[in-house]
Amino acid sequence: MGLQAGPRERLDEWLRAGLEWVESSLNESLQEVESAPQQLQAAMRHALMAGGKRLRPTLVRYFAAVAGGDDDCARTPAIAIEMVHTYSLVHDDLPCMDDDDLRRGIPTVHKRWDEATAVLAGDALLTQAFALLAQHEDAAALVEVLAEASGPVGMVGGQVLDLTVALDPSGFDDAKAAARAVEEVHSLKTAALFRAACELGWIAGGGDSARRVAARTYGHALGLLFQATDDLIDVTGSAEGLGKTPGKDAALQRPTLVAALGMDGARERAQALATEAREAALALGLDEGTVAVDLVSHLLNRAH
Amino acid sequence: MGLQAGPRERLDEWLRAGLEWVESSLNESLQEVESAPQQLQAAMRHALMAGGKRLRPTLVRYFAAVAGGDDDCARTPAIAIEMVHTYSLVHDDLPCMDDDDLRRGIPTVHKRWDEATAVLAGDALLTQAFALLAQHEDAAALVEVLAEASGPVGMVGGQVLDLTVALDPSGFDDAKAAARAVEEVHSLKTAALFRAACELGWIAGGGDSARRVAARTYGHALGLLFQATDDLIDVTGSAEGLGKTPGKDAALQRPTLVAALGMDGARERAQALATEAREAALALGLDEGTVAVDLVSHLLNRAH
Repeated sequence: MGLQAGPRERLDEWLRAGLEWVESSLNESLQEVESAPQQLQAAMRHALMAGGKRLRPTLVRYFAAVAGGDDDCARTPAIAIEMVHTYSLVHDDLPCMDDDDLRRGIPTVHKRWDEATAVLAGDALLTQAFALLAQHEDAAALVEVLAEASGPVGMVGGQVLDLTVALDPSGFDDAKAAARAVEEVHSLKTAALFRAACELGWIAGGGDSARRVAARTYGHALGLLFQATDDLIDVTGSAEGLGKTPGKDAALQRPTLVAALGMDGARERAQALATEAREAALALGLDEGTVAVDLVSHLLNRAH
Repeated sequence: MGLQAGPRERLDEWLRAGLEWVESSLNESLQEVESAPQQLQAAMRHALMAGGKRLRPTLVRYFAAVAGGDDDCARTPAIAIEMVHTYSLVHDDLPCMDDDDLRRGIPTVHKRWDEATAVLAGDALLTQAFALLAQHEDAAALVEVLAEASGPVGMVGGQVLDLTVALDPSGFDDAKAAARAVEEVHSLKTAALFRAACELGWIAGGGDSARRVAARTYGHALGLLFQATDDLIDVTGSAEGLGKTPGKDAALQRPTLVAALGMDGARERAQALATEAREAALALGLDEGTVAVDLVSHLLNRAH
């Protein structure tokens, strides 16, 4: 990639290289469970190798490099966070939750096998994530970060809130209070894992503890921005670009930022989150011209 | 408890004191998730405080003491293993698995709330187990042991085998081969956590690595013995003593040791497992007159 590459080309190349590294790492990591029952291995592999942008593990790799580490130190936390993200999708897709038959164009685990296999494959992926982290020289800190981000005060808590909080505008004093309730869900359900990705990379790469909070803040703002623009796209996007039916959130009465603040208010909030993420990047020495900043602009302006 | 106490009184007192310590420790540990959504906390507490003998965490505490440690060092691994055991029961009870409405006389989590809450409460308990272990000074070793014992090459693998392996005697060369297939399920599904309990306690208590394998072996044999006598009781026990309908395993064509070896063969195997466990206890300096040996005799001779 030449020095003249624009932000978009640089970001695309970063994502492409990250995806390749993540997928080969995931493939290797599955060898560790080759003594598990065949059907369980097949279901774990089916879910894990179904594609996706691999943004979370690519962020782990990036922040490890920013902190001064190499790919080797980033590998187990990168795989672990992708296993946790994947298990959450497998359980989300179950009939008792979102009841999805397809994920990325292929049958979900409970459609390909059955619900019991989907529950157990998710359980296996979650547990294996921690088995991998235990092998890392920074095991204690990595397990602490990932478990907190994905557990009852993190992602799983967000799932429960998302299922139980209906955004009834009359239940809030004003739009700001409604937006805060929406962002509480976003923060737990999505931003927690983005935050953990950046923090895991920073720790694994040997970053100093003084700037660890900036890595967290960047990931947190990036995750909230990702969800804010997801809410916007759900209203403005086409079915083709989205890969799902637009307006689904509103139809399901899901709590979204657009429902709370309107389109203009949600756009403003996305701008503010982008600024927050850019400032955190700057605190880490990552200014204009770095992938950290490109990614913020890309998420802010994305159409799908 | 006087010196004259017999094996049975000694064991009862050990179990009673263990249970009390475990339940107060579990109660404390739930305070760490008090910022989680109310419904999730309630479901976690419902499952975790529903009773049971608390044998696994009591074994953690015991082996920590045998290794020279105190209750404080045993607390987080004891809570963690009970959380993992409990999450597995919550997921097992789901309609797509065993479809049980009651557990220890109270409604299962999916009956009290709904299936989504049961899936997520299980996920939360599993994740929180690792969050707790991360705080321990031996975090890496403890996480490694618990994750391996409960993951795809451990308990979850055993669940999958149990659902997919039907014990068709014509599918095996002889009774021994059938019994090996049954014990493969027992080993993963049950003995893995008993083995982990003893090993976690040994590590947390600062035990030497030379005798760690004896702690593992004791737990493994004890877990297999527990399952072997469970299979025997299912045939010989009364509904009253069992707390469940006798003959349920046979009715479900579950792979049991009795189906593979007959009653006499299964009794012989249980004897051999008891001998194996006693020998491992001896290797740890635990001879006649210790709870380790009392427990083996109790499990061998139990009627329910």
